[in-house]
Amino acid sequence: MLKKSEAKAKSRLNRDKDKFYAGKKVLITGGLGFIGSTLALRLIKQGAEVVVVDALIPGYGGNRFNIHPRASRIKVVIADIRSEKQMDKLVSGHKIIFNLAGTLSHVDSMSDPMTDLEINCRAQLSLLESVRKYNPQARIIYAGTRNQYGKAQYLPVDENHPQEPTDINGINSIAAEKYHLMYFKVYGIKAISLRMTNTYGPRHQMRHPRQGILNYFIRQIMDGQTVELFGNGKQIRDINYIDDVCEALYLAGKSNTGWGEAYNLGGIPVSLKDFVSLAIKIFGSGRLKIVPFPQDRKMIEIGDYLASWKKMHKTYGWKPVVSLEEGIKKTIDFYSNYKKYYW
Amino acid sequence: MLKKSEAKAKSRLNRDKDKFYAGKKVLITGGLGFIGSTLALRLIKQGAEVVVVDALIPGYGGNRFNIHPRASRIKVVIADIRSEKQMDKLVSGHKIIFNLAGTLSHVDSMSDPMTDLEINCRAQLSLLESVRKYNPQARIIYAGTRNQYGKAQYLPVDENHPQEPTDINGINSIAAEKYHLMYFKVYGIKAISLRMTNTYGPRHQMRHPRQGILNYFIRQIMDGQTVELFGNGKQIRDINYIDDVCEALYLAGKSNTGWGEAYNLGGIPVSLKDFVSLAIKIFGSGRLKIVPFPQDRKMIEIGDYLASWKKMHKTYGWKPVVSLEEGIKKTIDFYSNYKKYYW
Repeated sequence: MLKKSEAKAKSRLNRDKDKFYAGKKVLITGGLGFIGSTLALRLIKQGAEVVVVDALIPGYGGNRFNIHPRASRIKVVIADIRSEKQMDKLVSGHKIIFNLAGTLSHVDSMSDPMTDLEINCRAQLSLLESVRKYNPQARIIYAGTRNQYGKAQYLPVDENHPQEPTDINGINSIAAEKYHLMYFKVYGIKAISLRMTNTYGPRHQMRHPRQGILNYFIRQIMDGQTVELFGNGKQIRDINYIDDVCEALYLAGKSNTGWGEAYNLGGIPVSLKDFVSLAIKIFGSGRLKIVPFPQDRKMIEIGDYLASWKKMHKTYGWKPVVSLEEGIKKTIDFYSNYKKYYW
Repeated sequence: MLKKSEAKAKSRLNRDKDKFYAGKKVLITGGLGFIGSTLALRLIKQGAEVVVVDALIPGYGGNRFNIHPRASRIKVVIADIRSEKQMDKLVSGHKIIFNLAGTLSHVDSMSDPMTDLEINCRAQLSLLESVRKYNPQARIIYAGTRNQYGKAQYLPVDENHPQEPTDINGINSIAAEKYHLMYFKVYGIKAISLRMTNTYGPRHQMRHPRQGILNYFIRQIMDGQTVELFGNGKQIRDINYIDDVCEALYLAGKSNTGWGEAYNLGGIPVSLKDFVSLAIKIFGSGRLKIVPFPQDRKMIEIGDYLASWKKMHKTYGWKPVVSLEEGIKKTIDFYSNYKKYYW
């Protein structure tokens, strides 16, 4: 199983003999974050000239160590995407913009809705305005989220599923995605949205669970803490390993089709309990405990989630290839080596 | 025809012997605007204690004359809903909040998207936060718009129709509506959205066409100007006379059911050409000219629109009763008398 998926991952890299990214100027917002940094590392391997923008806001996912040891090959700009003037300058000249800046916390968006709006809604519109004015030829790949759907009314959730989020973050993500897609329809700006599901893997921040629970479970296991799961732990989540998500971004960025549309990512449905159990098994020790739902979490709990990623496969040929075992193992290995930069 | 609909309108007023609004404290945001002021006048007749909030932003719909000659019975607060501190105070103590503040201009939202976002998205979320903190028992009726749907994919458009707006204004209205409905689901705030279609009638601003084309056509006719219609003039719009819209708000505000949902208004489908022709006939003179679509308008043109308002009828017993002839006649009469306050 491991060997098979590793072989597939290698074949991906071999596919890139077309050198699309070689010499291409690429901007990644949120580029010191989990997904942005992993993508940056991948793209410089392909010869891209990568500029990452990150505000390094405390508590968010940005971490300078994320681009170690390739930092010298990646241009880092510490800037906030909320700063319109800075973004006006930064967008210029880039062929491809991966727009990954944003927060992803359900809980934070409810306790501080205005900050969520500023970052996930206002700054996104502002960025599109910068692109429209100063670089209308750029391609923009926006990171949407499964959080836009809210509770699944049917499974698997396809892109036409109603969008009724259970939190502010989901609503602001909808607005931001709609701005992107509308800018294609009205102005011809080549924008798409990839609606990401739970992503895990190396370079995710590990200090709190608010931006992604899977990595935090792994930290708890590595710390010898008991992992507490709400309800019965049988909630299904559709999980992607970071390399599969970067592959999706990579493919979308180099294709010249499918603009003005949204695409689900997804791939490995697993219950939270099974994910944690497997991580405990791979790590070699750990404890899992089922506890009742806290009231505030129950209100925004979305139940089972399972995505249809057929559209993504059909349009860009994407499919996730990294097995859960391999993904968890690589994640644990990474943090075992670099714990001090993330704990 | 006239007599029948007038009789229906009278029977509405007689129905209000239940005195629901008598002595009730009601807040209307955008309350010096077209719809807000007409609603305020109606509610004080029913004995409500009405406070209207309006920023009187130049170019928007607010007009002090709109509440003439009842101004002494309506408390007017000149405040901007973008001011969080002011709204924190203002929402307190009101049993019912009609949240009608906002802009409705397709064109303005594209030329100044950030202002549209501040008013139609950010301020709406901020208002809900004020209500959650300081008056969580209040009912909130939000004014959504058919602009949320964009181009109709089928007719009539029901509430489950995909929402793919062709402008920033539509996207921000979607976000604002979703905030309202989510605040019901998560916090139990009694909020609903009425998705309004083209509304016309007395008290609409008449200085430019950007917030509603129907009234502006009437001004052009009254001014002896040629009305220019884009394309072929056969675009269908679903039209409501102002009193029918206020009746919908009135019914929703006094009912204690249906929260957390959105409802279409609608009622009299007519082509723009037929609307203008009828207005010319009623006014007694006027000219109509068909001209090609300007490119910038063509991009955001939504084609025919026709709403299903079954859900609104089923939940609140609402139906539009004012005929087009009567509505246009009353509109022309009003502006003939009060032209100097609107031109």
